[in-house]
Amino acid sequence: MTTEQTQNRRKPRIAVTMGDPAGVGPEVCVRAMNDPELQRSVQLIVFGDAAVLKEVAGATGQVFEVAVGNTVQWRSLSQSLSGPLVVDLRAIETSQFRPGVISAATGQASYEYIDAAIEAAQDGSVDAVSTAPISKEALHLAGLAYPGHTEIFAERDGSRRWCMMQYSEAITCTFVTVHCGYTDVPALLTHERILDVIQLSAEALSAIRGRPPKIVVCGLNPHAGEAGLFGQGEEESIIRPAVDAARRAGIDVEGPIPADTAFVAAKRAVTDVFVCMYHDQGHIPVKALAFDCAVNTTLGLSIIRTSVDHGTALDIAWQGKADDGSLFHAVRLAAEMHCGRGSQCNE
Amino acid sequence: MTTEQTQNRRKPRIAVTMGDPAGVGPEVCVRAMNDPELQRSVQLIVFGDAAVLKEVAGATGQVFEVAVGNTVQWRSLSQSLSGPLVVDLRAIETSQFRPGVISAATGQASYEYIDAAIEAAQDGSVDAVSTAPISKEALHLAGLAYPGHTEIFAERDGSRRWCMMQYSEAITCTFVTVHCGYTDVPALLTHERILDVIQLSAEALSAIRGRPPKIVVCGLNPHAGEAGLFGQGEEESIIRPAVDAARRAGIDVEGPIPADTAFVAAKRAVTDVFVCMYHDQGHIPVKALAFDCAVNTTLGLSIIRTSVDHGTALDIAWQGKADDGSLFHAVRLAAEMHCGRGSQCNE
Repeated sequence: MTTEQTQNRRKPRIAVTMGDPAGVGPEVCVRAMNDPELQRSVQLIVFGDAAVLKEVAGATGQVFEVAVGNTVQWRSLSQSLSGPLVVDLRAIETSQFRPGVISAATGQASYEYIDAAIEAAQDGSVDAVSTAPISKEALHLAGLAYPGHTEIFAERDGSRRWCMMQYSEAITCTFVTVHCGYTDVPALLTHERILDVIQLSAEALSAIRGRPPKIVVCGLNPHAGEAGLFGQGEEESIIRPAVDAARRAGIDVEGPIPADTAFVAAKRAVTDVFVCMYHDQGHIPVKALAFDCAVNTTLGLSIIRTSVDHGTALDIAWQGKADDGSLFHAVRLAAEMHCGRGSQCNE
Repeated sequence: MTTEQTQNRRKPRIAVTMGDPAGVGPEVCVRAMNDPELQRSVQLIVFGDAAVLKEVAGATGQVFEVAVGNTVQWRSLSQSLSGPLVVDLRAIETSQFRPGVISAATGQASYEYIDAAIEAAQDGSVDAVSTAPISKEALHLAGLAYPGHTEIFAERDGSRRWCMMQYSEAITCTFVTVHCGYTDVPALLTHERILDVIQLSAEALSAIRGRPPKIVVCGLNPHAGEAGLFGQGEEESIIRPAVDAARRAGIDVEGPIPADTAFVAAKRAVTDVFVCMYHDQGHIPVKALAFDCAVNTTLGLSIIRTSVDHGTALDIAWQGKADDGSLFHAVRLAAEMHCGRGSQCNE
């Protein structure tokens, strides 16, 4: 590669939202900005409050020596810098809250960080967004009736089809249904939805792995129904036709197979992504095998969005005890998903 | 311990049923009888056909040099020997079947091995039974309409309450429901059934671990319902009252907790057994974490019964390729469950 080509490429610019100010988000953002290895591969642009980040750095024994820009300056600043940058949204003052205690004010602030980061991703000022944890309860106190990040992103994006993906090196799962009751699942399993999730999974893993992925679809019933012995025939009437349609569309997909044998080590080794019918079917193996290093991401948006796989952890917030591994993984996956989309980047 | 005390103790006598003659059962039985370490801790008494065992030993490059007794002699033989013994039931001739091909004859023979082993366990001639794999299809060809071992044992035992347990060092699960469709599960979750399974789990793990076990009960819905947000309130109306009743009865039990966080490494390290609401909830983590070393056992019988965690594997039968690990684990667990019941044994 020539010097000119190298110069034309730049590190992926990853927006990181600071999360709820009272939670562990601010301290893991500071740690991410202070991590030399992470800076080599990405430019971190933290959407938050500079005063909060400075105070949490002091409280947790970290330095805070990064560039800060206001909502006008930051775009030009990010062009001239290659290191990390804070977009200072001044959404909350440090006197307005106490560490570990959420409120309407912390909920409102956490929403404003997300809002600004989405706008930046939509106008191309950043390449992807990684989100630190927010509090659903704080959002509700602020009058914002979202169940979580995913719905905020989907609404702002206007997405018709999207799905959750839990990604890790050990195991990756996507979900046909997620946050609904056990008994609500069967009615939500439709040919169109399953096919959508298989296709979204294929697109995402193609980008990440740089080759056509191997996809396995799980059944709903024990033993995937064992040829009609268990269940209402959901495997034969709904899941298998969707798998067959995806295969006809050129996707390397197998299933439905029994969910318990799907996740054995030998099968995991040759599978890029498992399409799961319900929340616990995929969250059980992901958390059992890749706790602390799985990344939650939303597929099907026009922007790339990844998230830490933990909550605000209010009981240990601002004490320097929070594990930053999940945010690091979320940032790295965001960069991989961006670079895989054919962008010019030297990640 | 005095010499006299040592002499009064004896190794646990574990009946091993040979399984379907056409499957991998015969060869793993021969390997178990030839394993010096296993012989130090247990006396293996294989219920099968001596001619089949001799032939499979030849086909798979193993020796077959163990004592053989007929249905009359074997009890006295087992008293005078400390090494392995074959109870030669002459249920099938080697000319009656081909390796890898099940039939009515192999199904009938596999049933006769089980029948004789249960009788021996019931009259105290053996201390426990470990079963090699049978073919449900072969049983049906022979006109024996059992779904599997568990139901044969439960019927012969006349058990009112019993449950499946999947045991391994890494993770152990018991099951409130097992072989039914996804949609059939909620109606089968009753206070009495959940309490029965918690109590059976407590009794079994007390025996194995020699101390009161720590039990975790999983919820049914995502996030264990998240305080009514998901599901029909099954956690609050059915599962929690059963857990509370078990706790009042002196059992160290926690739950219902979300099934995905139940199985993280930190929780597994402090939990002896997880009570699962449905098949895949427990089989997913067991197979993901302990494939090839989990043992299937039936709790609540008057006799101890453990089983290999694999099928007849007809495609590799009689080729010397079968993994004997699961049978070894099943035999060892049977011995532990027996010794934990306060019996005199030097295992």
